[in-house]
Order: sequence, then structure tokens, then C-alpha cells
Amino acid sequence: MSEHAVSRFGHVELDDMPDDLRERIGAIAEKSGFVPNVFRALARRPAELRAFLDYHDALVEKAPDDRGGLSKAERELVVVATSGANHCTYCVVAHGAILRVRMKDPEIADKVASNPWGAQLSPRERAIVDLALLIATDSAQLTDAELDDARMAGLSEDEIWDVGAITALFAMSNRLAHLTALRPNPEFFLMGRLPR
Amino acid sequence: MSEHAVSRFGHVELDDMPDDLRERIGAIAEKSGFVPNVFRALARRPAELRAFLDYHDALVEKAPDDRGGLSKAERELVVVATSGANHCTYCVVAHGAILRVRMKDPEIADKVASNPWGAQLSPRERAIVDLALLIATDSAQLTDAELDDARMAGLSEDEIWDVGAITALFAMSNRLAHLTALRPNPEFFLMGRLPR
Amino acid sequence: MSEHAVSRFGHVELDDMPDDLRERIGAIAEKSGFVPNVFRALARRPAELRAFLDYHDALVEKAPDDRGGLSKAERELVVVATSGANHCTYCVVAHGAILRVRMKDPEIADKVASNPWGAQLSPRERAIVDLALLIATDSAQLTDAELDDARMAGLSEDEIWDVGAITALFAMSNRLAHLTALRPNPEFFLMGRLPR
Amino acid sequence: MSEHAVSRFGHVELDDMPDDLRERIGAIAEKSGFVPNVFRALARRPAELRAFLDYHDALVEKAPDDRGGLSKAERELVVVATSGANHCTYCVVAHGAILRVRMKDPEIADKVASNPWGAQLSPRERAIVDLALLIATDSAQLTDAELDDARMAGLSEDEIWDVGAITALFAMSNRLAHLTALRPNPEFFLMGRLPR
Amino acid sequence: MSEHAVSRFGHVELDDMPDDLRERIGAIAEKSGFVPNVFRALARRPAELRAFLDYHDALVEKAPDDRGGLSKAERELVVVATSGANHCTYCVVAHGAILRVRMKDPEIADKVASNPWGAQLSPRERAIVDLALLIATDSAQLTDAELDDARMAGLSEDEIWDVGAITALFAMSNRLAHLTALRPNPEFFLMGRLPR
Amino acid sequence: MSEHAVSRFGHVELDDMPDDLRERIGAIAEKSGFVPNVFRALARRPAELRAFLDYHDALVEKAPDDRGGLSKAERELVVVATSGANHCTYCVVAHGAILRVRMKDPEIADKVASNPWGAQLSPRERAIVDLALLIATDSAQLTDAELDDARMAGLSEDEIWDVGAITALFAMSNRLAHLTALRPNPEFFLMGRLPR
Repeated sequence: MSEHAVSRFGHVELDDMPDDLRERIGAIAEKSGFVPNVFRALARRPAELRAFLDYHDALVEKAPDDRGGLSKAERELVVVATSGANHCTYCVVAHGAILRVRMKDPEIADKVASNPWGAQLSPRERAIVDLALLIATDSAQLTDAELDDARMAGLSEDEIWDVGAITALFAMSNRLAHLTALRPNPEFFLMGRLPR
Repeated sequence: MSEHAVSRFGHVELDDMPDDLRERIGAIAEKSGFVPNVFRALARRPAELRAFLDYHDALVEKAPDDRGGLSKAERELVVVATSGANHCTYCVVAHGAILRVRMKDPEIADKVASNPWGAQLSPRERAIVDLALLIATDSAQLTDAELDDARMAGLSEDEIWDVGAITALFAMSNRLAHLTALRPNPEFFLMGRLPR
Repeated sequence: MSEHAVSRFGHVELDDMPDDLRERIGAIAEKSGFVPNVFRALARRPAELRAFLDYHDALVEKAPDDRGGLSKAERELVVVATSGANHCTYCVVAHGAILRVRMKDPEIADKVASNPWGAQLSPRERAIVDLALLIATDSAQLTDAELDDARMAGLSEDEIWDVGAITALFAMSNRLAHLTALRPNPEFFLMGRLPR
Repeated sequence: MSEHAVSRFGHVELDDMPDDLRERIGAIAEKSGFVPNVFRALARRPAELRAFLDYHDALVEKAPDDRGGLSKAERELVVVATSGANHCTYCVVAHGAILRVRMKDPEIADKVASNPWGAQLSPRERAIVDLALLIATDSAQLTDAELDDARMAGLSEDEIWDVGAITALFAMSNRLAHLTALRPNPEFFLMGRLPR
Repeated sequence: MSEHAVSRFGHVELDDMPDDLRERIGAIAEKSGFVPNVFRALARRPAELRAFLDYHDALVEKAPDDRGGLSKAERELVVVATSGANHCTYCVVAHGAILRVRMKDPEIADKVASNPWGAQLSPRERAIVDLALLIATDSAQLTDAELDDARMAGLSEDEIWDVGAITALFAMSNRLAHLTALRPNPEFFLMGRLPR
Repeated sequence: MSEHAVSRFGHVELDDMPDDLRERIGAIAEKSGFVPNVFRALARRPAELRAFLDYHDALVEKAPDDRGGLSKAERELVVVATSGANHCTYCVVAHGAILRVRMKDPEIADKVASNPWGAQLSPRERAIVDLALLIATDSAQLTDAELDDARMAGLSEDEIWDVGAITALFAMSNRLAHLTALRPNPEFFLMGRLPR
């Protein structure tokens, strides 16, 4: 397999995107300092990219609200654990970077991505990751018993939904990254690894 | 596990949905004769449901266009094959109904859902389903070799993207259905089974 | 793979079977209204078909007796659950039809076949199906602990034997159906789906 | 788990069996010098044991006939390979003994049972074992391509049926042995290991 | 695959080994009556063979000492159980022979190798084998919970280390045997099977 | 699980090791700037640690010689790919650091560890990694056919042995790291990521 600049299916540069996407992704790029490759690759299909962004914002960017809900760091923990289990390089590298930043821990992403089953976590984090891993790898076997385990560890109904829905969203994202042989931007590899 | 009317997390009736969703899902309900349970269950989170609908419309409802692309029946074939491999009852029953209608074949859905690897299909359909199954069950192993197999069977780049992206979308949908213990509407079971 | 009328290895029509088989299968056909394809395919080897019929009658057709035992509907539940786990189209379709009839439930077969692990069942049915699934998919791991679980759910020794032996019989039947690419008779697909 | 004399469900001695079974199994015992435990365990259910014996005789004891067919040694090779893959101690030990005798090779059974995928075999034997292993472990994935491989290695249609049907029969037998925690008779362990 | 005398990569006879290895393996051969093939095959790389022998002596030949530790028979039990799970013919046959001798039980090795999950063992032996099997087949999932199970069954910290380290050593040995298609010496097959 | 400083079984500081180990590991520490935790954890058992070091030196530290052989970077590639497949955090982090240094590529380790099957590599590297992955995850299925694939890609017999033996050694190391819940030294995480 030859190395692709961005993806197996080519990519669209920011300037060539439809106005709404150029504006929306431009804002992300301004904040990150670069355009994450996932957007350049998915822009081949603008309607799909819009839905992807909407889904992502609704689930991963959402801060906890009055009804509680996972913290932003916990949301990234779900992403890195399940992307590790699914062997998705792009998501492990890109969201691993975000997890390091959000947890202010330069080691957590490598530990969770390489062995999400065994990584040493707090009991609440372990309950979150265990539920996510079951849904990522064998969701047909999810029964009330596993949800009760999560409730016993203190997760609310909305938090359980968050864990399940984020896992489901990245079941999709991981497969899109594998479909496109998506290459992580070089910037992600070092993010959050150096003391600030 | 007790039997739920719609989902493990309750549901929202059409009349209680936000205006845009009530209108959009109302239109679907009018066409089908009933409100598919997936919408009643996901309406607990309107922003997520909107993204879900957008993604679904962009990938599954899209007709082939100038650049070719999968037929609507082929799109449902991908859904039923991968939902069968993922053991997702809701998607097998609901999209199995649509597949029967679109293929005008009362047997195809049961055959594809119960054994997507062995179901007797045309060479083009078999290439579509084989690619979908690999991405559904072990996408980390997807390499250029498998894409070349699909190209040899006549699939265009856009058709390969369609197969992969629909498979990815239902990797998500199947997990959402398992998360919510989503119950298929009774109407789906018989749709497309009787001569019209 | 081209579509076969009945099986990959051809078939024998009722009139061409040895007298005893013609009589025995004729009686079944009279009751069903058609000759189930499994008998036409296995008739290629009369001695094997006779043993198959005898085994089937001893295990699946047997009504509960003085010592208790599984009900006829429960026996079909074991067949559909394990055939679903084994991805056997013929057995899912044919015994799914019988299960619908015996349970007077038009939805049960599709639910159990597509996801036998997660289908919502009574505690007794769940214990039956869980034991059957373990024996179907990983019987080397069966220990006294799992049998004790079944006993705790109220299954007698004879009922445990029934579950295990029916599962074992369909481990064989499922493989014979896959060997012969056995095609379900069209009549099975609709049986038990319409109110009578 | 405590050690059982014969089986987890007890057993029936030869003298306590119905006349036809006592006669039939008595004849086997006379030839072997002992009553194989499988018959003592299955005699709890005479009708099932009769069908089991009939099936076994039709498939495993059958000599090649005018239409060709597997040799008796090849039939045992299928049994030992698939029982090894299924981790069935009784069948590995008992049929391993018969395989040693039939192949006049004191090492073959241990090699095939411990690693049926890698055991060094003739090309015809390898084709037989490869087909058997696929049907034993993942029969839903059997397609015309694998049957063509078997044909290319010289197997006739009847020989392919033999391989598949014997594999299917021992998919059942292995599960019955696991259900009953069936203990091999001590005599089997040494049979065929010493030069005669 | 053609049959090799010793290994796929040839072998080195005792007389052609470096002095230290000739002496060390000569001593083993004197005791056994033959040169175990593993040494003839690995002697292709003397430095690796020396490390292999050292590791083996440190873990498998070590007798229990003041701090307790596994008995020599228990060490072989770990080897045979995990080599069975790994389908390693050489280790099953060679260490099966040693296990029979050390346990003075002509049946134990065949039972443990063919089905290490279900073999009937004492509670202490079962705890040892269960821990070994988890480490052999899925060590990333080992958590404190499984170690606590082993402690509850009475294993000391040093005994747990022994189980884990012997399992790890044979994870290596099994793969070396598969790499080299290592053939068991004929003498192993009968060792420990006959009353002395 | 609480976080351990080094390992679940405690550790031995350099000063408390036997003289030969203190000297040998001291030399490594001097070069690295720290004592890799694997040595502090394994020093609990000096004889085992000596054999571990010898094996490691013989296989991983060896430079290519007159007979060819893998480069040092290729040896680390085998380690990172198989440790990634085995989900071993310590080996992924520690040997990932060495791989980055040896390949002078700050991205290679994360790519290979997260998805060794799909990482974009040269044809020679891909052949090395494919062989290593098969031996790591399912070595019983290794046949002459896979070795021929490696030979076709240009690997010599000695290089094939290197790939297999290094994979085997890390099948052991990965399991020792999981047994001890071995924690990577903080220094490894950043090594080789910054331009020098």
C-alpha cells in the first residue's frame, strides 16, 4: 500500500469546500492550528460530513448539563478506549491527543489505547470503559445485567446513553477511517505530551 | 429482562417532539402508516436524532446519480447483511422489510440476515456484501487488496465509498438499537411478504 | 454461486424414495402441505435420512411426559436460537415457522434468530436459551457451574439433557444444511405470520 | 467438578438395556473387549441411542463402495481432526485409538488431535481435513469455492458428502460428550500404541 | 507439507554442538535415553538455545522451596494445559509424557491437552489451570479480580508468578515449535502410559 | 486496581540486585538514563531475569551479520507490531520509543501499534509484520504456504527464524508484563518524538 497524503480517496482542501463547511471547519482549524484530516477526507461528500459534524458536536463536544452527563474528558476516554479496541490509528492518535490535553496526563492515551481492558482507572472510569468496550465489540450481548453494573458504579441513565452513543458514533468513525486509510495529521502525535 | 413498549430508555411520541422533528418524522409515518420505533426512541435526544436522520438520508435514501452509485435495493442489502452479522434485531426486521419491498422478493431478507456470508447472490451483490461484512466485523484488516477485489467486480470508487459508509452508519445504528433494546414495530414483520 | 432448486447435491423426489421413506415423509408432507426440502436433499443417502428422522422424532417431536421435559414450543426455541447463532438459513426459516405456530407469536422467531443472546424471554426460556447457546458455540467450556445455573432456573436433569441433545442434533443439522446449501421451501417464510 | 465413573448423568449397564440395544452393543463390546462408555451414557435414552448407532453405522462404519468414498481410516481422520478442534476428550481418545489401529501409525492421532491445522498429511488427507475443519468450526462460511478446492484435490461428490456428514455427526457427538462430561474408557488410551 | 526428520529448519546433532551445549544436552539425553528434538532444532542458534535452557531450568525444573511454589507435577500441568490450548503438538506430546510420569497417571495428559477448560481436576489444580489459560489466550484481560480468584484458591504470590511465568515461557516455546514444525521424538508417545 | 509504582509484584532497585545483574542492568541504565521497569520487576527472580536478558540480547540486540538477518529497526518493528496485537502497554510504549529512535520516524510506532494489520509499510516490512502477526495470534495455523509468502518477499531462512523467534520471545514478554501489570517508565513516552 502506498502512503497517501490524507486518505485513500483523496481529499478536499478547506478553500474548495462549500461555504458552510469552509466556515465551520475553518473555525476548528483556527483553534487547532491545522485542518484535521478527517474533515478533508470526508468533504468528498458534503452532506455526509455535515451530518458527521452535527453528530460529533451533539455527543462529544457537549459539556455536562443540569442532568449531569459525562465530562468532556470522560467522553474522550470512551473514544480512545473503543478506537483502541477497534485498532483505528486515526482516532487513537487524534483523540488520544485531545484526551491528553483534557486529562492533563501525557501517559493516559497510550495506556488506554494499547490496553483498554487492563488500563488502571478510577472505578467510575473503569465502569465507563467496560460498558463502552462491550458495546464496541459485542453489543448483541448487552443485557440489563451490564447496565445494572454501570448503574451500581454510579452512572445515570443519561450517562449510560452517552457512553453507548459515543461508542456507537466511533464504531462508525473508526470504520470510515479504515475505509479511507485516513492518515493522522503530524501535529496530533505530540499534542499534550510536553509540559506547558 | 422485561419487555419494553419501544425501548429500554422510554420514548417520545410524535406529538411531543420538537416541531421540525414532528414534521420530518410525521412525513415518514404518513408514508409508512406508522412511526418507526427508532425515531420514537432516539427523540429523547433531538440533536442526535437530527444528525441521525441527516446521515441516513445522505446515505440510504440517496438514489444513484450521474456518477453511478448503489441502487436503493443494494443499499438495503448492505444494511441487512451487516445488521445480520451484528445480530441487530431491529435493523434486520425493519430494513429486512424495506429490502423485501425494494427487491420485490419475499425471501431475500431472511436469507441475507441469517447467513450473509453464504446467501446466494449475483456476483456484483456478493462483492458488495463481502466488502460490507469485512468492514462490519474487522475493518482494521481492510487493505488495498480487498478494495481491488471490489473494483474487479465492477464497483466504482463512489460505490465502494457507499458500501463502506453505509456499513459504518449501521455499525452505529446497530449499537444504538442494542443500547436501547429497541423493539421493532409489529408492522415491519409482515411487510413485503405477501404478493401485492 | 448459482441458485439451486433444493440443494447443492441435487435431491430425490418423494416418488423416487424407498418405500419406507416415501411413506414416512409422505405423512409429513400431507400434514405440512409440501415436502420439506431437507428430506428431499438428505434422501440421497437413505440410511442417513432414516437415522436423521429417528433422532429428530426422539428429540424434537417428543411431548413432555411424566418425567416432565421441555414443551414442544421450548424445543423449537432451542432449535431457532442455536440455528440463529450458527447462521443456518434453512433451520432458521423452517423451524422459525414452527416456532411461530407453536408459540402463537408471529414475532418470536425473527427476534430469537437474529439475536438469541438478547431476545426478551421469560426467565425459564432465557435459562434454556443460554445453556443451548453455550453448547452450540463453545461446548468444551461447559462445566458444572453452568448446569447449576440451569438447575437454579428450575430445569430438571431431563430438561437439561433435552436442551443439550437438541442443541447437539442441530449442530449436526445446521452443518448438513450448510454442506448442501439447502434452500428453504417458499411455504415456510410466511407460516405462522398471519392471524388465523 | 468431581470425577464421574462414566458420565455426569449416570449410566446404564449392558444388562439393564432393552434387548435390541443389549444385543447390538454387546456385539461391539465383544469385539472391543469392553463397553465403550458413550453407549452406557446414551442408553439413558434408548430411542436416541438407537438413532445415534444407526447414524454412526451409516457414516463411519461404511466401507468404500462402487461409487468410491472415504476409506475407513480417512473417516476416522475426519473424526479425530474435528474432535480435536472441538476439544472433545472422549472422541479424541476413543477415535484416536481407532485411527491408530486403522492407519497402523501410533503417532497419527496425537498429531492430528493436538493440531489438525498443521499436522503433516498427504495432499488428499490435507484436503479432507481442511474441509472438515471449516465445516466443524464455521460452516456458514462454506461456499462453492471451498468445495472446488476439495474437488481439485480429487475428492468426488460422494466423498465431499462423507467429509461433511461425518463432521456434522461429530459436531453432535462432541456436544453430547461435553453435555454428559463423558469419560473415556481406560482401555482406549493405550490401544494402537504398541507394536503388535 | 513434507515430513521433516526433526524440524523445518534442519537440526544439529549432539556431536556438532558447541562443547557447553553438548555437555548440557548430553546429560539430558543420558537421563531420557534420547536427545529431545527441541534441542536439536534450536541448536541452530546456540546463544538462543542457552537462554532457552536457562529459562526452562529456572521455571520448570525448579522444585518447591522454602517459600512454597508449584510442585514439579503442577508445573507440567501448566505446560500441558496451555500447550493444548495453543495446539502445539510437540509440547503436548513431550510434556504430556513428563506429566504422566510425574503424576503417575496414564490418562491425565490426554485429558488436559484435549480439553484444558473442562478436564476434571482438584480445586487447586483447576485454579492453576484457569489462571494459566487466561494468560495463554487473552492476557490483556488479566485483572486483579482473576488474581484474587487464584489467591482465594490458596495460591501464594510466588505460585501465581510461577503459573504466569511458565505459561509465558510456553507461549514462546509453542510458537518456536510451530515456527520450526518441530516433530516429537517417537519415544515420547508411549512414555508413562504403561504400568512400571 | 490501584496504580503500582512499577509492578503488581513490587520491584527490586538496582542497588539491591545481585552483582552481575546490577552491573549488566546498570550499563543499560547508564545508556538510557534510567532503569527500565521491566528489569526492576523481573529482578524478583534473578535466574529468570538472567535468562530473559540473554534471550533478548541474542535476538533483539543482534546486528545483521554475514548471513544477513533483520536490521535492528526491523527487529523492533516485529516487537511493536506483535505487542500491539497483544495489547501490551509496557512493550508498546518502551519498544515504540526504541522503534522511533531506530527508524528516525516519530509516527511509526503509534501507527504500527494501533493497527499492525493496516499500517502502511514497505513490501519487505509488510511481509515481516504479516508473518509476525500470524505467529503471534494463531501460530498453529502456520504452514509452508505462509513461509513461502515470506520467501517470495525476499526473506532468507535466517530472517524468517528471526521474525518467528522475536515474535515468540515477545509472546512471553507481553504475558510477563500483563502478569505483573508492568508500568512503563515515564521517560519512554516522549523518546524519539522530538527532532534532535
